[in-house]
Amino acid sequence: MAEKLPDPLERLIHELSRLPTIGKKSAQRLAFHLLKAPDQRARELASALVDVRERLRFCRQCGFIAEGDLCSICTDERRDSTLFSVVEEPFDVLALERGGAFKGLYHVLMGRLSPLQGITPDDLQIASLLARIDASKTTESPVREVILATNPNVDGDATALYLSRLITSRGISCTRLGLGLAVGSSLEFADELTLRQALDSRRALEKPMP
Amino acid sequence: MAEKLPDPLERLIHELSRLPTIGKKSAQRLAFHLLKAPDQRARELASALVDVRERLRFCRQCGFIAEGDLCSICTDERRDSTLFSVVEEPFDVLALERGGAFKGLYHVLMGRLSPLQGITPDDLQIASLLARIDASKTTESPVREVILATNPNVDGDATALYLSRLITSRGISCTRLGLGLAVGSSLEFADELTLRQALDSRRALEKPMP
Repeated sequence: MAEKLPDPLERLIHELSRLPTIGKKSAQRLAFHLLKAPDQRARELASALVDVRERLRFCRQCGFIAEGDLCSICTDERRDSTLFSVVEEPFDVLALERGGAFKGLYHVLMGRLSPLQGITPDDLQIASLLARIDASKTTESPVREVILATNPNVDGDATALYLSRLITSRGISCTRLGLGLAVGSSLEFADELTLRQALDSRRALEKPMP
Repeated sequence: MAEKLPDPLERLIHELSRLPTIGKKSAQRLAFHLLKAPDQRARELASALVDVRERLRFCRQCGFIAEGDLCSICTDERRDSTLFSVVEEPFDVLALERGGAFKGLYHVLMGRLSPLQGITPDDLQIASLLARIDASKTTESPVREVILATNPNVDGDATALYLSRLITSRGISCTRLGLGLAVGSSLEFADELTLRQALDSRRALEKPMP
């Protein structure tokens, strides 16, 4: 580029372009927009960013967003603590909650197995999932079923298959969200009815061992 | 949504979704990403946002980004001050500068005429453009040509036509970026060669009055 932009603008464009799905050109457009918008707009966004990091964390138990130690789902006594739904990301919890059909608890993996990207089981919240399941066995409400709600694509399939072996070997029923989700799509963008269908038609991956 | 998100997260999603081209779902995804990313990432973005608003402004003369009163193009004495290029937005200056083919000065309209959106000539930097042209007449380097580099779409065409009448009535040659730009597309995303072609093949909209 013949004309060098002022440093603060270059920096903002750089920071924006590090966000997912935002390329260099989009970042440039957003930065110019923020420069042109009323002054408080950029400040409100900046303070919202800092606020989120200061006031929120991930639930110690399930990995969803929490204001305190535990999230509002884990502390809700009306939820069925014998039924788990395993999702890849915190926003996948929102997708399932939108439908309102699932009444159990969640476990967020914080990603998916991906040999190509070098993401192994150790990088995901798998040990903590198994620990939760094992710990429940000595309580009054042991986990009876784990619904694998990973995305219906290659990585999500591999992750579900890997988890189903670990979970069924513990004698616990393990199902996957049923047909209804388009192959190769993303859970986050599914509509509520499709998700409800998928919950209803969930199927076993492997029979629990005797 | 059955599950209400914590306020700080709702606020960040709301602020992000007010940005152009970012819808509710994208905003949600970005917010979750920022929550999951290392702590300094959100802070760096926040500080870049505040920094841009504190340290940058629009050039008093042409409307491009400036750190001081005037931008680096307006203060560059090697630029041809008898040739103006009129663009809609500050980022359009970048698009033309990338090619390096234009050596004159700019004038940013800060938008385009759009009857449907209620944007009239008074909302744009048109009076200041005419004032610059008129003021140059009494100097040693009067403006000799104005290149209208508005986007090649309906609003950009209307804006160019409106401006060409005002400019040619002042006895100044007025051209428009030539063919080479795809109709209905956006200047910002044109490649450098296409822009260079368009500069070379610029054509008069109306003959200057005698």
